[in-house]
Amino acid sequence: MSNFGFSELRLVNPYEVAFREARSAVKAQGVLAAAREYPGVAEAVSDCALVVGTTSLGPRALEHPLRRLEYGGKLIARKLVSSPVALLFGSEKFGLSNEDVSHCHWLMRIPAREEHGSMNLGQAVAVCLYEIIRNPAAAKVKPEARRAANAGELERLTERLEEVLDRSGYVHARVEGSTRMKIRRLVRRLNLNAHDAEVWMGMLRQILWKLNSGGRE
Amino acid sequence: MSNFGFSELRLVNPYEVAFREARSAVKAQGVLAAAREYPGVAEAVSDCALVVGTTSLGPRALEHPLRRLEYGGKLIARKLVSSPVALLFGSEKFGLSNEDVSHCHWLMRIPAREEHGSMNLGQAVAVCLYEIIRNPAAAKVKPEARRAANAGELERLTERLEEVLDRSGYVHARVEGSTRMKIRRLVRRLNLNAHDAEVWMGMLRQILWKLNSGGRE
Repeated sequence: MSNFGFSELRLVNPYEVAFREARSAVKAQGVLAAAREYPGVAEAVSDCALVVGTTSLGPRALEHPLRRLEYGGKLIARKLVSSPVALLFGSEKFGLSNEDVSHCHWLMRIPAREEHGSMNLGQAVAVCLYEIIRNPAAAKVKPEARRAANAGELERLTERLEEVLDRSGYVHARVEGSTRMKIRRLVRRLNLNAHDAEVWMGMLRQILWKLNSGGRE
Repeated sequence: MSNFGFSELRLVNPYEVAFREARSAVKAQGVLAAAREYPGVAEAVSDCALVVGTTSLGPRALEHPLRRLEYGGKLIARKLVSSPVALLFGSEKFGLSNEDVSHCHWLMRIPAREEHGSMNLGQAVAVCLYEIIRNPAAAKVKPEARRAANAGELERLTERLEEVLDRSGYVHARVEGSTRMKIRRLVRRLNLNAHDAEVWMGMLRQILWKLNSGGRE
């Protein structure tokens, strides 16, 4: 919860041993310390404008509308702008009861494999909260890409590589046209960024210097 | 892992006590039983075409490209169609070492609050795998919505409600125009589906029958 910026934990009939002995993650003590117990679901969600139950089960003869997490998360994020929203999780073993579910406006399904019928509670919470804070715009951009090496930089690198291959006897002194083109394509396929192209140039220059000095110390 | 359909767990230098005593979730025994130990990261990822390290830390002076989970997950899903991909997680306490990271093509950041600097390992894995199997198309549709009540159904409901309010003395016998419109808008705001409109009609008919029978048994 704290990792994704959610602070209000409410408990109904918690398993006392587990709750008393719960130790919070690093720097997340605040959430556990502020957690409140309620006698029932009705009391726990009374100030919420939207109550969503969670399940890892697939569509079945449910009286409630069932929405996949990808869609439901978006609705919740939108509602949260104006009002408190309750996200209801059942016990790991039994899930939410019919009585619990009757307090919900709709149910949200984590798209997990149906064969399991159950999911670790902490993981289910993490996945739901991640979807709520998930930024769709971030899926579209590649924010920190380095500038790709341009054609001039790649061509200088290609020339240096040819020279090294020539001096080291990998190719004949006069590199023939088709070999030259093979090397050029080989270098392009590296998808180098400008910084890495610079590093490779330095390496090749040093190798060339050594080759030209006849391998002497 | 099993919840989201991932089966191959590889371990490097695991904390033996925790690993020996690990109990799998319901119906996920297969993943733990098939888990393999490797002497180092290089051996563990040797057959993978893409190696991605994970971190909950923000951008910093990293030598590696850092991609947010929303974007990185998409790249991984695309790559997985043709080749094995390794997703590398460090220990909860220390994360991945520089040596671990040097085996990675790039790093992926879970967009958690930076204040924590750490995240529960199981939750981090769940969130990353969820993003990989997440279906963007599912965010756009409301798959199981019931047919909304149409204008005719809502108008019949409005008339019946007016009749009930009239008989019960809530409004005057001849409902005046503005009141009629208020009631009409009130009913529209319920956003009823066709099934629920039917249920409400039945309730109102029964109430009306009782009111007309003069409250006698």
